[in-house]
Amino acid sequence: MIKTRVTVWNEYLHEREDENIAKIYPEGIHTAIAKGIENDDFTVRTATMDQFEHGLTEEVLKETDVLIWWGHKGHDQVTDDIVARVHQRVLQGMGLIVLHSGHFSKIFKRLMGTSCDLRWREAGEKERLWVVDPAHPIAENIGLFFELEEEEMYGEHFDIPQPDDLVFVSWFEGGEVFRSGCTYHRGQGKIFYFRPGHEAYPTYYNEQVLRVISNAVRWAVPKHGAMPIYGFNEPLEPIKPKQDHGEEQPQG
Amino acid sequence: MIKTRVTVWNEYLHEREDENIAKIYPEGIHTAIAKGIENDDFTVRTATMDQFEHGLTEEVLKETDVLIWWGHKGHDQVTDDIVARVHQRVLQGMGLIVLHSGHFSKIFKRLMGTSCDLRWREAGEKERLWVVDPAHPIAENIGLFFELEEEEMYGEHFDIPQPDDLVFVSWFEGGEVFRSGCTYHRGQGKIFYFRPGHEAYPTYYNEQVLRVISNAVRWAVPKHGAMPIYGFNEPLEPIKPKQDHGEEQPQG
Amino acid sequence: MIKTRVTVWNEYLHEREDENIAKIYPEGIHTAIAKGIENDDFTVRTATMDQFEHGLTEEVLKETDVLIWWGHKGHDQVTDDIVARVHQRVLQGMGLIVLHSGHFSKIFKRLMGTSCDLRWREAGEKERLWVVDPAHPIAENIGLFFELEEEEMYGEHFDIPQPDDLVFVSWFEGGEVFRSGCTYHRGQGKIFYFRPGHEAYPTYYNEQVLRVISNAVRWAVPKHGAMPIYGFNEPLEPIKPKQDHGEEQPQG
Amino acid sequence: MIKTRVTVWNEYLHEREDENIAKIYPEGIHTAIAKGIENDDFTVRTATMDQFEHGLTEEVLKETDVLIWWGHKGHDQVTDDIVARVHQRVLQGMGLIVLHSGHFSKIFKRLMGTSCDLRWREAGEKERLWVVDPAHPIAENIGLFFELEEEEMYGEHFDIPQPDDLVFVSWFEGGEVFRSGCTYHRGQGKIFYFRPGHEAYPTYYNEQVLRVISNAVRWAVPKHGAMPIYGFNEPLEPIKPKQDHGEEQPQG
Repeated sequence: MIKTRVTVWNEYLHEREDENIAKIYPEGIHTAIAKGIENDDFTVRTATMDQFEHGLTEEVLKETDVLIWWGHKGHDQVTDDIVARVHQRVLQGMGLIVLHSGHFSKIFKRLMGTSCDLRWREAGEKERLWVVDPAHPIAENIGLFFELEEEEMYGEHFDIPQPDDLVFVSWFEGGEVFRSGCTYHRGQGKIFYFRPGHEAYPTYYNEQVLRVISNAVRWAVPKHGAMPIYGFNEPLEPIKPKQDHGEEQPQG
Repeated sequence: MIKTRVTVWNEYLHEREDENIAKIYPEGIHTAIAKGIENDDFTVRTATMDQFEHGLTEEVLKETDVLIWWGHKGHDQVTDDIVARVHQRVLQGMGLIVLHSGHFSKIFKRLMGTSCDLRWREAGEKERLWVVDPAHPIAENIGLFFELEEEEMYGEHFDIPQPDDLVFVSWFEGGEVFRSGCTYHRGQGKIFYFRPGHEAYPTYYNEQVLRVISNAVRWAVPKHGAMPIYGFNEPLEPIKPKQDHGEEQPQG
Repeated sequence: MIKTRVTVWNEYLHEREDENIAKIYPEGIHTAIAKGIENDDFTVRTATMDQFEHGLTEEVLKETDVLIWWGHKGHDQVTDDIVARVHQRVLQGMGLIVLHSGHFSKIFKRLMGTSCDLRWREAGEKERLWVVDPAHPIAENIGLFFELEEEEMYGEHFDIPQPDDLVFVSWFEGGEVFRSGCTYHRGQGKIFYFRPGHEAYPTYYNEQVLRVISNAVRWAVPKHGAMPIYGFNEPLEPIKPKQDHGEEQPQG
Repeated sequence: MIKTRVTVWNEYLHEREDENIAKIYPEGIHTAIAKGIENDDFTVRTATMDQFEHGLTEEVLKETDVLIWWGHKGHDQVTDDIVARVHQRVLQGMGLIVLHSGHFSKIFKRLMGTSCDLRWREAGEKERLWVVDPAHPIAENIGLFFELEEEEMYGEHFDIPQPDDLVFVSWFEGGEVFRSGCTYHRGQGKIFYFRPGHEAYPTYYNEQVLRVISNAVRWAVPKHGAMPIYGFNEPLEPIKPKQDHGEEQPQG
C-alpha cells in the first residue's frame, strides 16, 4: 500500500505572537491538523514560513502528494519564487487544500485569477455547514450538516470562479451564507477550498472538520495521468494541400 | 438606445513587419475586426500596443463595455501595470473577448490561473467548429457548425479551467480537437475565449467568425449589477453570546 | 422591436379554495405575476390548469417565448401529454421559469432527472437571498442581497443536478440554506428555478422578486440558434477503407 | 479490503441474432467487459435482459455498487418498473456507467431529462479520444489520447445536460467531434457516459477502453455519505414571531 504524502504548511505567526491563540494551538495550527488527520494511509509532515524556503524546497514539494495551506497575516511574506514553485507543482498534479484565511494567500489568488475577496466579521457566532453535493467523496461520512459553535463569519459575495463542484454551503448566525467547500481542477492538479478555521477558535480539533480535510486529501491525490505535452506537434492525419482559397465552404 | 462601447485591442506587430500578413490585414487585424462587427448597437474603437499606455488608459477602459484582445509575439511587451488595470476592470464588470493566440497573453493567464498552454501546428489545415451548446446566445444564428478552410491548429490538452459554458469544439484536419469557444464569469465580468484567428489567414473576414464575435460582445455587456461590498460587515441578525464552549453540538 | 411573449401558468387551486390565500391573490398568483412583470418589452398572458389542455395548447406554446410555472397541490392533475408537449418545446428553445413549489411539478422533475426533493417548513420565517454570481444577467439591478420577511423554508439537500450557474443562495431564520436561483441549458432551451413564492405570503408583490423574474425572462428568450439535426449523416471528410484490423495503433 | 461489486448489464440481442457480431463477442458484450475489467478490487457479475426482471432484481441491485449498461435495439423492451428501480438506486448512491448506444436507453434519458439524441454514421472510421481533463481520475494512466481504428461515428450536437466534468472529446475521421466521456452527480449517485462500443467492432477488447471503464468503476463507487432526509423539519434556530407585515426591509 502506497501512502499519501501530506505536507501541512502554516505561516505560524499568530500562535507565537498571541498567548490566547497559543493556548488553543500550543504547537501551532499545522501540528493540530497533522495530528488530527494522521492515519495508516497518510504520511504527514509539516512546514512553516520561517524555515528555509518556507519549508517548501524543491525536494519537499517533489515528495508531497497533497499540500495543506494555512496563512493569514503573513501572506505578503511568502516569496514570489516559492509561490511560483507551488503553482507549478499544482498544475503538474499536486493536490492543494486551502484553508480559511488562505483565501487571500498569493497561491490561491494566483490559481483562481480573481480577487478572492469576501465579507467577514469576528463575533464568535455559530456556523452550520450544509452538504449540497451528497455524492461527493469529500462529503463522505459527513451528516446532512455539521455545526461549529463559534467561528469567524465569511459572507458572500465570495469572489471566486464558479467551483467545479460545490460541496458545502455555510449558514451563519448573523445572517450570511457562504460557499464553504469548493473544488477545482487546474492542470493536472486538484484544489479544495475549505472555509472553517479561524485561529481564535479550536476548529481544527473538531472531528467533522478533520474528516472533511482527510476526505479532501484522499480526493486530491494525484492520479498519475499522462503529463500533457504542449507545443508544436506533427499532424496525426494527412493534410490536403489547399489550392483555391476562394472555394465555397459548407455551413451547418 | 444605449450603444455598447467596444474597444478592439491589437498588438499590431505582424501586420507591420511581414508583408504577407500586411496583404491580408493592410490596416491591421484590429481594423478588420472593428469594421467587421460594426452595427447600429455598437460604438467601436481600436487601440494598439504602441499607443500611450498601450491605448488602454484609465479613461479608455472606463468608457469600454467590452474589450476584444488580439496579441501574439508581443505578450511580454505589455506592461504589468496595464495588465493589472485591465484585470481590475474585468472583475468590476467589463466584458473581455480573448482571441486566438491571446491564450498566452498576460491578462488571460492571470484571469485563468493556469498555464493556458496547448498543442499547435501551422499547416494551413481545415478547422470545423461544432456548436455543442445550441441554447447559448453566443451560438445565435450560427449553424450546426462552420468551417475555416485554412487555420493554424490548436489541440488539446488546453490548460484552462473548465469553462462555465463550452460553446464550440473544433475538429482539425490533422487529427486534433479543441475547446474553441469557452465562457467564464470572473467577479462581475464575463470572459469569452474564441480560438480562430491566425494572422496568416483571412479569418477575421469570415462572416461566421464575425457573427460569433458580435454575439459574444452582446453576451459580455456589463449588467449593472450591484458592486459587491467586501470587508468587515455588521451582523444582520442578533448573535447570541456563547458561554459554554463545551456544549454538545447537534450533527446531521 | 419584437416583444417577448410570456405565458404565466398557474394551477390556480389554493386561491379559489382558501379564503386566506384569496385575500392575498384575489385574481390568482398568475395575475399578480403577469401584472407585476408587465413592461414595454413583454407581451404577457396567463393560463390555468382548468382551461382546455390546461391552457397550454399547441398554439399557445408555439406563441410562447418564455413560460412561467407555478404549481403545488395539483401536480398530479397535469396530464402527461401536456407535460410531454412542454418538455418538447423547452428542448426546442422555449424558456421555462419554475417557481417555488413547482420544484415538484412533473415538468421540472422530467427536465432535471432527479427527485427534486428538499426539506421544508412553513413557519413565517425570514429569508435572505444572497447574490453569489454578480456577473449574471438574472442578478441585474438586484443588490448584494434582498429579504423576504416571511416565507416558507426550503432547505438543503435540494436534489437537483448541479446548476450551470448558481445565482442566489438563501439564508433562513430557522437555520437552513438553499440554492434558490439555478440556471440550466437543456437542448436549445433555458430553464431558471427560483425558490420564493409560497401562496400564503405576498411574495409576488415584492419588487425584487418581480425584478428577478423579469430578468430571468430576458435571459431565457430563445436565441434562434440552428435547430440541431439528429440522426444519420454523411461524412464531411473522406474515410479511408480499413484493411488490416490488426495494425498497430499509436497511443498518446 | 472491501471489493467493489460490479454488475455488467447487456440487452444481449445482437450477439445472438447476427453471426458477425457473435464472432466478435461469442459470449456477449457483457462477458467481454466483465472479463476485461476483472481484477482483485472488483467482484464482477453480469445480467441480461432475458433474465427474470432483466436480471436486475431488488436483491441484485442492493448488492451492486456500480452498474454498467449496454443496450441498443432493445431499449423499449426494458420495463418501466425496472427503469424506475434503477433510477431510484442511482439517486441513492449506486454508480452507473452508460456505454455507447445506451445514450438512448430509458434509464439514461430519464436521468438526463433531455432527448439524448445525436448524429451518427456507421462507416468503420477512425476515432481518436482526447483527454481534456488530465486531473480526472477516469483519465488515470490514459495517455494524451487513444485511438480506435474502426468505430461507429457519434457527432455533435449531443443533446445532454452540460457534464459536471468533461473528460474525453472524440475526433472522427469523417469530420465530427463528440463529447465522449461525461460525468454527472445525481442525488447521491455518480454517472459516467462513455461513447465507444459499437457491437460490430472489437472495442471492448481494447486495453485503453477497458482501463477507462475500470477507472470509472473506481470513481463511481458510492461514498457512504449520509442519506439526505427530505420533507418537513423543525427549525434549528428560534424564529421570531412577525407582527408588522408592513415593516421596512433592508436591501443590499
